[in-house]
Amino acid sequence: MTLENLLLVNFKNYKDSSFNFNSRFNFIYGDNGNGKTNLLEAISMLCYTKSFLQSSEIECVKYGESEFEVSGSFRNSLNSSQKVAYRYSADENRKSVSVNNEVLGRLSSFFGELPLVVLAPGDLKLTQGTPGDRRRNFDIIISLMSHLYFDDLKNYTRIVKQKNSLLRDNLLTKKYSNSKLIDLVEPWNTELIDAGIKLIQRRAGFTTEFQEYMNINFHDIVGDRYQPIISYKPDIYEGFNNGTFDVINIRNRFENKITEFYPLEVKRGMSLVGPHRDNYVFTMLKNGNSFDVRTFASQGEHKTFIVALKFSEYEYLKNKTESEYKGEPILLLDDLYSELDRSRKEKITNLLPKLNQVFLTTTDTGYLELLKQNFKEDELSSFNIINGTQKAAG
Amino acid sequence: MTLENLLLVNFKNYKDSSFNFNSRFNFIYGDNGNGKTNLLEAISMLCYTKSFLQSSEIECVKYGESEFEVSGSFRNSLNSSQKVAYRYSADENRKSVSVNNEVLGRLSSFFGELPLVVLAPGDLKLTQGTPGDRRRNFDIIISLMSHLYFDDLKNYTRIVKQKNSLLRDNLLTKKYSNSKLIDLVEPWNTELIDAGIKLIQRRAGFTTEFQEYMNINFHDIVGDRYQPIISYKPDIYEGFNNGTFDVINIRNRFENKITEFYPLEVKRGMSLVGPHRDNYVFTMLKNGNSFDVRTFASQGEHKTFIVALKFSEYEYLKNKTESEYKGEPILLLDDLYSELDRSRKEKITNLLPKLNQVFLTTTDTGYLELLKQNFKEDELSSFNIINGTQKAAG
Repeated sequence: MTLENLLLVNFKNYKDSSFNFNSRFNFIYGDNGNGKTNLLEAISMLCYTKSFLQSSEIECVKYGESEFEVSGSFRNSLNSSQKVAYRYSADENRKSVSVNNEVLGRLSSFFGELPLVVLAPGDLKLTQGTPGDRRRNFDIIISLMSHLYFDDLKNYTRIVKQKNSLLRDNLLTKKYSNSKLIDLVEPWNTELIDAGIKLIQRRAGFTTEFQEYMNINFHDIVGDRYQPIISYKPDIYEGFNNGTFDVINIRNRFENKITEFYPLEVKRGMSLVGPHRDNYVFTMLKNGNSFDVRTFASQGEHKTFIVALKFSEYEYLKNKTESEYKGEPILLLDDLYSELDRSRKEKITNLLPKLNQVFLTTTDTGYLELLKQNFKEDELSSFNIINGTQKAAG
Repeated sequence: MTLENLLLVNFKNYKDSSFNFNSRFNFIYGDNGNGKTNLLEAISMLCYTKSFLQSSEIECVKYGESEFEVSGSFRNSLNSSQKVAYRYSADENRKSVSVNNEVLGRLSSFFGELPLVVLAPGDLKLTQGTPGDRRRNFDIIISLMSHLYFDDLKNYTRIVKQKNSLLRDNLLTKKYSNSKLIDLVEPWNTELIDAGIKLIQRRAGFTTEFQEYMNINFHDIVGDRYQPIISYKPDIYEGFNNGTFDVINIRNRFENKITEFYPLEVKRGMSLVGPHRDNYVFTMLKNGNSFDVRTFASQGEHKTFIVALKFSEYEYLKNKTESEYKGEPILLLDDLYSELDRSRKEKITNLLPKLNQVFLTTTDTGYLELLKQNFKEDELSSFNIINGTQKAAG
């Protein structure tokens, strides 16, 4: 998949700008506050039907305007083209996404059609943040790969929501007797366990496969000194080990824990057991010692872990996606080089030519020289962004 | 105040290392994960009696060891010297801080004796995070300046805690009648209002004074194109304007709001009104338009705002501290240059010589050339950190 061009109208600090992109490498440079990241954000809105920065639409409308439009043409591996347009009107508080000029009825049906991997400064929360941050990240990757997982996840989320609403309602009003409440919760628990096991099985399988990608990318950046380990920690099974997945065992543990926690769920008015509370733990072996990345890694080690993670996500999606025709994902690299030492910067730059289409932002044009050693002249275009306009194309 | 030397024993990745520092500029460089930030963390533990990274002591003990020691000698503006030592034993789970070989009874009595300002990557949460993040940051600065404020803050925090404990206890046990509960809460509200007004008055005065420092530093980095505005937003007074502070008006509003929210406080079992819920809002004027930094600033604009903020804190402390003998604060700059464009990097570097003693970490030795243009040869020492040891001193 490649993005051939992009049009921005009243989007953030862009009044009316268009870009023709290189199918391989796009080097986007400029001083602080001129709109480099806004360009990447617009691309993510076309691919995900929302911003990777979680901006609300109203925050994306140019100052003094009332609506914006972002549109672009994508070409897939069968060489057919798709024009995607994202429009928002603040007056009507309405957004619409169209593909080849047909407005989509359900936005979620489009999710995964244009595979995209993003590396941005906010991703530091993947290693430093909450279990929910890591869970969401991997849920997006598995969903991009498999619409089945995406549907299972939506279904599971719906069940948790219904169960929560029942428990919260009862907590506030005390309207059910104990036996009545059990009768009402039981069917939700059955559904929750059935749907939950599908998620656990998929996440466990994903983690095993993904670990191999992670090993290779980490090694390519820092050599033998470090080794990264991603451990999937299902909420229902503390001692879980990926190597020994067993559906009957998982189901037993799930049923036992959900029974054990039932009194506490009633008291707290919410669902406390299941894969909506899963975690992934990141560990590193360094000089023979094992340490928790979240607590003990330096800023540069955090960044290295995340860069390896994003490159692995890219390759994983490329190899595993269920819809072959889409081809390779697009990769957005916002401020890739910050926090990394020279050796790591160079090793990462050497990895870039194996990727399909890349968009990289930076304030430092010095990196252009480094990149030119890795790409042919016609494989690299550069864009100088000044206050929401493109000054010169290389 | 200058730090003359530092000794680290079994602290993080340092086995047994000592450093003799330059009284002006210390350039600390090395590859990712070698221990540059650990060095700054050790300095912050001597000055604050805790880590600026909020590490727990047990996380600071070298792998395989059971205790650490960090010690250093500081020289104040009267040229007298203080030796501070911070020791922790994991086996006994005990920490102690000694000054000139006398163990401190209360650690908090020492807070503010060694004024320190820190800029670190985690500070991005000042502009992007919660009101609590900003409140804590300014509370530290005002406390470093004034022990009176520090005591008022501790007193206020104690009152809120007592009131919370009373309300929570009642929520869980319903042990008081309505009239009895009011009788019990009333005296806490009186204390809370008296103590709270002191905080509000001090915070309002601080914001007015601090704005001027912020204007100058921001202008020195980016020129006329931008203007920063820091607005203090007391919880009890939405439309508060620093220019019109009036104690009687504030007291009336405080009393009215605390009465208005009483039923909700009882229902939620916690104190919902007062300066423990204050906010500071950061705004920028850019090209004539005003925008909220938290929502609309680019990554580079966030960083610029924070750099100007930290330089302003430094100068504010230097000019306003109530204990003249301490002299100027120490400034720690962890990864100062990331995210900034070339022009901003240069302008910030030009500001560094006006500071007293600075410790700067970086992976990029290229900045050393830039710095050498601003400092005399004997004003600048460099330290190459490799795996917890110092390789060469310049």
